[in-house]
Amino acid sequence: MRRMTAMKGHGFSLDDAVAILERTPAGLSALLKSLPDTWVRATEGDGTWSPYDVIGHLIHGERTDWMVRGRHILAGETRPFDPFDRTAQFTESQGKSLDELLVTFADLRRENVAALVAMKLTDSDLRRRGLHPELGDVTLGQLLATWVVHDLDHIAQIARTMAKVYTEETGPWSVYLSILRDRQR
Amino acid sequence: MRRMTAMKGHGFSLDDAVAILERTPAGLSALLKSLPDTWVRATEGDGTWSPYDVIGHLIHGERTDWMVRGRHILAGETRPFDPFDRTAQFTESQGKSLDELLVTFADLRRENVAALVAMKLTDSDLRRRGLHPELGDVTLGQLLATWVVHDLDHIAQIARTMAKVYTEETGPWSVYLSILRDRQR
Repeated sequence: MRRMTAMKGHGFSLDDAVAILERTPAGLSALLKSLPDTWVRATEGDGTWSPYDVIGHLIHGERTDWMVRGRHILAGETRPFDPFDRTAQFTESQGKSLDELLVTFADLRRENVAALVAMKLTDSDLRRRGLHPELGDVTLGQLLATWVVHDLDHIAQIARTMAKVYTEETGPWSVYLSILRDRQR
Repeated sequence: MRRMTAMKGHGFSLDDAVAILERTPAGLSALLKSLPDTWVRATEGDGTWSPYDVIGHLIHGERTDWMVRGRHILAGETRPFDPFDRTAQFTESQGKSLDELLVTFADLRRENVAALVAMKLTDSDLRRRGLHPELGDVTLGQLLATWVVHDLDHIAQIARTMAKVYTEETGPWSVYLSILRDRQR
């Protein structure tokens, strides 16, 4: 299914991972801060998330997912991780502006990256295992790689969701703009 | 082909368009500045572009596409737009660092957005027509909407390309990370 070029395996590097993780909040703030609701509250259709929803989801991940699971693995816990609540943002973000959420996300991410770096993880730490409630055995290195890809997935989702607001407005050019047809449902 | 929700048509707004156009350079700089080459030089496979290539392509668009075509329409030209060179960046970016390209893009975009705002375009201007060499009749409003979607398409492409660097590294989690399977070729 996947092309060989995508499969070659670059190898996880903590420095490379941190380089992405520490840039995400500033990148999202620069793209989204004080944007009109036309963009920020748009979705791709029923049951899909707006950029506003996505930032709330990222905040919930900082609080309950990545570093919590990382510490769970390092503590040698044998019970599975607590399941992640994928809809928490719909209640937790209520009454908060997008700009408030962006600041909260940046603060939590800064603390989490500082804590991650302070752990001075070794290659042997990265191979330690935890139990995912659905996926089974996973390693700390896989958790951290997933944190990185999860950031990038949601950045792409935000860009795609906003692009689709102007699907009709691009007129004949829409045939060149593949993003307008990505994740069609 | 498209869902109704994506087709409802928000209506082009110059203020909304400028809000995206003016944020793109800072967003891309925050995400990419001084990132390791692992991320910046990665592609999705043969014939696909790295984040570095994409920034060069965006620079070429600032120089030869959007505002050039906008002025062409407003001048009432009847000949088609000059075709856009989609591979110019492979020669023009040579020898330049990513950080240099990001600064060049930000400078050109700032000038172009300032020129766009200074035009004080009316609704009737936005309906003026030009001739695209392949697509035929297009309006100024469609050109500007396409500029916005083109930015967002390339932001999503950059995030997707970098995400795929860690396809293997996410292990069992890859099943949850749809971006790893977007635009598979």
